[in-house]
Amino acid sequence: MTGAQSADAVEQFLHCATPRAWVTAAMDNPALLLVDHANCEKKAASTALNLMYRYVEHPALLHRLSRLAREELRHFEQVIAIMVEHRIDYPQLSASRYAGELRKLVRTSEPARLVDTLVAGAVIEARSCERFALLASHLGTDEGRDAMGSPGLASQLAEFYRSLLRSEARHFKDYLSLARQFAPCGELETRVGLFLDLEQTLIESGDDEFRFHSGVPGQAA
Amino acid sequence: MTGAQSADAVEQFLHCATPRAWVTAAMDNPALLLVDHANCEKKAASTALNLMYRYVEHPALLHRLSRLAREELRHFEQVIAIMVEHRIDYPQLSASRYAGELRKLVRTSEPARLVDTLVAGAVIEARSCERFALLASHLGTDEGRDAMGSPGLASQLAEFYRSLLRSEARHFKDYLSLARQFAPCGELETRVGLFLDLEQTLIESGDDEFRFHSGVPGQAA
Repeated sequence: MTGAQSADAVEQFLHCATPRAWVTAAMDNPALLLVDHANCEKKAASTALNLMYRYVEHPALLHRLSRLAREELRHFEQVIAIMVEHRIDYPQLSASRYAGELRKLVRTSEPARLVDTLVAGAVIEARSCERFALLASHLGTDEGRDAMGSPGLASQLAEFYRSLLRSEARHFKDYLSLARQFAPCGELETRVGLFLDLEQTLIESGDDEFRFHSGVPGQAA
Repeated sequence: MTGAQSADAVEQFLHCATPRAWVTAAMDNPALLLVDHANCEKKAASTALNLMYRYVEHPALLHRLSRLAREELRHFEQVIAIMVEHRIDYPQLSASRYAGELRKLVRTSEPARLVDTLVAGAVIEARSCERFALLASHLGTDEGRDAMGSPGLASQLAEFYRSLLRSEARHFKDYLSLARQFAPCGELETRVGLFLDLEQTLIESGDDEFRFHSGVPGQAA
C-alpha cells in the first residue's frame, strides 16, 4: 500500500478532516509541533508498554505491541535528531486534551477495557496519519515552505512526515485488527463509531493550546 | 569486545559472583526464569522511557535511552517467542525485591537523582550480564542440560543468553558513562560503591522467591 493509499484509508475511517486553521497554526509553530510530536511518539510507546504489562496472557498481542513500541521509539529518535539539527529546545510541555478525553470513553471491565484502549489507539494513529499527510502535502508547496519561515526545515519535515505516513497507517490497522480479535461479535463498529464521534468534536471544536492533536486553535472550547 | 571479555569486565565491576544455589534454582525453574526475564526486559524498557519523560533537556541522553529501550523490547520479543515455542504460560508475577531495594538508594534532588538512577541501571545490567554468562556456561555442559530436564530448551537458552551478553554489557557501560556525565567530579565512584555494597547483600542473602535477580533461594531474608 502506498503512502497515498494509506492516507485514503485513514480519511475514510475518520469522521472529519483536520480544519485548515490547525494547519496554519502548525506552520506558525514548527518548534511546538516538533516538541509535541516527540511527546506523542514517546506516549505511544508508553501506551503500548502499559498494555504489555496488563495483558501478558496474549503472546501475539505482546509481540505486536512490542514491535509497535520500538517503531514509535525509532520515530522519537528521528524527531529529536531534527530538533538538535535545528537547535530547537525540548521543554516540558503539557499534553493536549485529545488522548485524555478519548480515554474517558474506555470502559473498566474486561475485555471491554482492552477493546476500547485498542480502539482509542487506532483512532489516535489514524488522526496522526491524516495530519502527517496533510502537513507533508502542505510543506511540499511553495506556499507551505514560505509559511514555515524556514525552507530547509520545511523540506526536511515534508519528507519526514511522508516517511511516517505508512507506519502510522499500519499502526492504525494493527490496533483495529487487535481490537477485532477481542471484541464480542458486532460490538466493534459501535465502539469505533462512539470514539470517532467524540474525536470529531475534539478536532472541530475550539482549543486553547496548539498541539499535534489539538482542535481549532485560538478559540476557548 | 567478545562476549567473554564483556563478562570479565562485568565481573570485575561487581562485588560478588552469583551463588551456586541460584544457578541450581534456575535449572529447576526454567519457566519462572523465562517469565521473570521477560518482565525484566519490559521493566528495563519502562525505566529508560521514564527517564525520557523526566530529562527532556538532554538530547544525547534521550537518544541513548531510546535505543536502549528498543533493544530491551527486542529481547522481550525473543523471550516471548521461546516461551510460545515451548508452550510456557506467561502469568502475572510479582517483581523481585532487587530493583526496588536498589532504587531506595536513589536521592531525590537533581542531578543526584539522575546520577543514582543511571548507576542503579548500570548495576542491574551488570548483574544481568553476569547471570547470562553463568547460565550460558552452565547450559553448555551435559550436567547443565540434564539439570534443566529439557535438553532442547537448554541448548536454545545457552545460545540465547550468549547472544544477550554483549548487549547487556554495552547497556552497563552506557549507563555508567551517562552517569559519569552528570555526576560532580569524584562523586561517581562513591555512589557506585554504595550501590554495589547493597547489591552484594541482595545477591548473597536469603530470598524467599526465585527470580532472575533474586538472592540465595529458599532462605528467608
